[in-house]
Amino acid sequence: HQEEEDTSLEDPWQDEEYFGSYGTLRLHLEMLSDKSRTEAYRQVILSNSASLRNKVVMDLGCGTGIISLFCAQLSQPSVVYAVEASSMALYTRQLVKQNGCDAVVTVLQGRAEEMELPEQVDVLVSEWMGNCLLFEFMVESVLLARDRWLREGGVMWPSSAALTLVPCQADSYYAEKMAFWERPYGLDFTPLQPLAQQEFFTKPKFSHLIEPKDCLATPSDVICLDMYTLQVQDLEEIKGQFHFCVERSGVFHGFTAWFTVHFESLKTGGAAVELNTGPNSEPTHWKQTLFMLDRPVSVCVGDSISGTIVLRRNPVWRRHMTVALHWNVNSSTEETDNCKVGTKIFPMWR
Amino acid sequence: HQEEEDTSLEDPWQDEEYFGSYGTLRLHLEMLSDKSRTEAYRQVILSNSASLRNKVVMDLGCGTGIISLFCAQLSQPSVVYAVEASSMALYTRQLVKQNGCDAVVTVLQGRAEEMELPEQVDVLVSEWMGNCLLFEFMVESVLLARDRWLREGGVMWPSSAALTLVPCQADSYYAEKMAFWERPYGLDFTPLQPLAQQEFFTKPKFSHLIEPKDCLATPSDVICLDMYTLQVQDLEEIKGQFHFCVERSGVFHGFTAWFTVHFESLKTGGAAVELNTGPNSEPTHWKQTLFMLDRPVSVCVGDSISGTIVLRRNPVWRRHMTVALHWNVNSSTEETDNCKVGTKIFPMWR
Ligand SMILES: [Ca+2]
Ligand SMILES: [Ca+2]
Repeated sequence: HQEEEDTSLEDPWQDEEYFGSYGTLRLHLEMLSDKSRTEAYRQVILSNSASLRNKVVMDLGCGTGIISLFCAQLSQPSVVYAVEASSMALYTRQLVKQNGCDAVVTVLQGRAEEMELPEQVDVLVSEWMGNCLLFEFMVESVLLARDRWLREGGVMWPSSAALTLVPCQADSYYAEKMAFWERPYGLDFTPLQPLAQQEFFTKPKFSHLIEPKDCLATPSDVICLDMYTLQVQDLEEIKGQFHFCVERSGVFHGFTAWFTVHFESLKTGGAAVELNTGPNSEPTHWKQTLFMLDRPVSVCVGDSISGTIVLRRNPVWRRHMTVALHWNVNSSTEETDNCKVGTKIFPMWR
Repeated sequence: HQEEEDTSLEDPWQDEEYFGSYGTLRLHLEMLSDKSRTEAYRQVILSNSASLRNKVVMDLGCGTGIISLFCAQLSQPSVVYAVEASSMALYTRQLVKQNGCDAVVTVLQGRAEEMELPEQVDVLVSEWMGNCLLFEFMVESVLLARDRWLREGGVMWPSSAALTLVPCQADSYYAEKMAFWERPYGLDFTPLQPLAQQEFFTKPKFSHLIEPKDCLATPSDVICLDMYTLQVQDLEEIKGQFHFCVERSGVFHGFTAWFTVHFESLKTGGAAVELNTGPNSEPTHWKQTLFMLDRPVSVCVGDSISGTIVLRRNPVWRRHMTVALHWNVNSSTEETDNCKVGTKIFPMWR
């Protein structure tokens, strides 16, 4: 009952905060300045330019309208519905006009769920991905729009998405936040380490950039989502498994996660476009997400690290989730280590 | 009257927020990781080690107690009163004990203004400086503690402070936040430029690191504070003047400010220690503060840039201030430019 009272005071979708932040330029500038992201969408439009002719497109959560403008300038769709809930929509309309695209692009301000369109669409394109793929759950709006507005046989862009995980070293982050307290300026500050663990290792670190050399094994896809068959209720709990073979001896500090999305071609047999936000691609504004263990574990080539990952959507705060990791280190040698099995649940952010 | 009503709802000192943030590790880690800052205080203690013998010291806003621990380990004061208002004080007490300094260092949790000490002190040391020297106005607590607890002839560390200003280029910041909209991905996004100016150039940029080559003239001290004679009421409005001779032709994008503090020696004629947070010293966690003009002005060697700076403390929100800059560019050639005189008032943050 307490929980009900709390949430009655506040919107569990936190829409004012969420859409409010997209009403300022900062986030849009960050996304537009991300060349890998923006060029990937541009490439999708460009490589499907001929097939998009006379098609009806919906660009959901269009922001400044960049994807809609690519559609209008690089192909000849019959119409692009550019849907944006935040107050940015007023500027998007100006930008469409300024670039001479107002005959093709129609900007609609409002929530996707409440949007009325005059027709069904052939293509639903959206950049809905967040940290760890799902954070902020904009994907729910995309799925609802799909079920309501995508015509039978229509195309989803992205068409599929995968979350990738790797066990990793994080030496400098560990040194900076935890080992630091061991002997700063010749003093013993270790009484602060429990506080440091609580403050720096409880939640995942969003803005992490892992180097390929810090991957202790070959990264593995742990969750794959099909954007045609995924259902809103599937988002409540998503489970994955992993089994890594350690290929580099070192210190296992935690797991790093990132995502990849695929855009299928409108032409049968046409080449797909991929946007990969991992350490072997150009860094994006999403960077990668680091999950620190409470205590590092030494591992050797030949050891295995297996376990499960569960993304659990917060039942109250609908844009939040927890990431539960359970792991088991199997040593290839006879040595024992008392940290070989572990479980940790990371809130993102509640 | 409206203003009275507003502030009756909230504490104009925002102490819960202010001291709350110092109850977590993040800020303390940032300050301790700043070697220039921390080593400067260490150097002050070390170079005055003999003179500190049997002295009574107050370390105001001691945080984790690092300065007090330096005192206890590098010299032999009779007592160090380590005063900390935030909940960090509980940990500070543990750290003092852990390092065997509890016979010398007494940790007192509470606001400096309400603190009762058993005696007056010979030395009042504090790291009270904020962005643009004064931001957050912790200096007021230092001045009140000085008037109440520093004995006649006692020493203040820092002993004096100066705010330095320079007209500068800020090409990459300007490109990233303003020029970006001119032609991103071949599109015209200039309708967003007024929004960008409002969002990115209205307030100063705190975390700026200016390179010496971006200084268009020799930096100049515009405000100097004597920590012995400075009065709390002086803080309401502090004025300075500048007259720069342009030594490098380029684009005048704004002004950059930083501070330097001096620690006098306890021995007559002893060497002072300086902590300089400018571009010719090692970067500190304060970095420098950038004030962007609304429109850049081209300047040539031989031009002069003169004007005034006024720091005005917010009459309601006591930790905030505005920085008013007024400038006049005098060209050495005959060319005219319609942006030669300008005024801009920057809130920090209200
Ligand atoms: Ca996004
Ligand atoms: Ca400070």
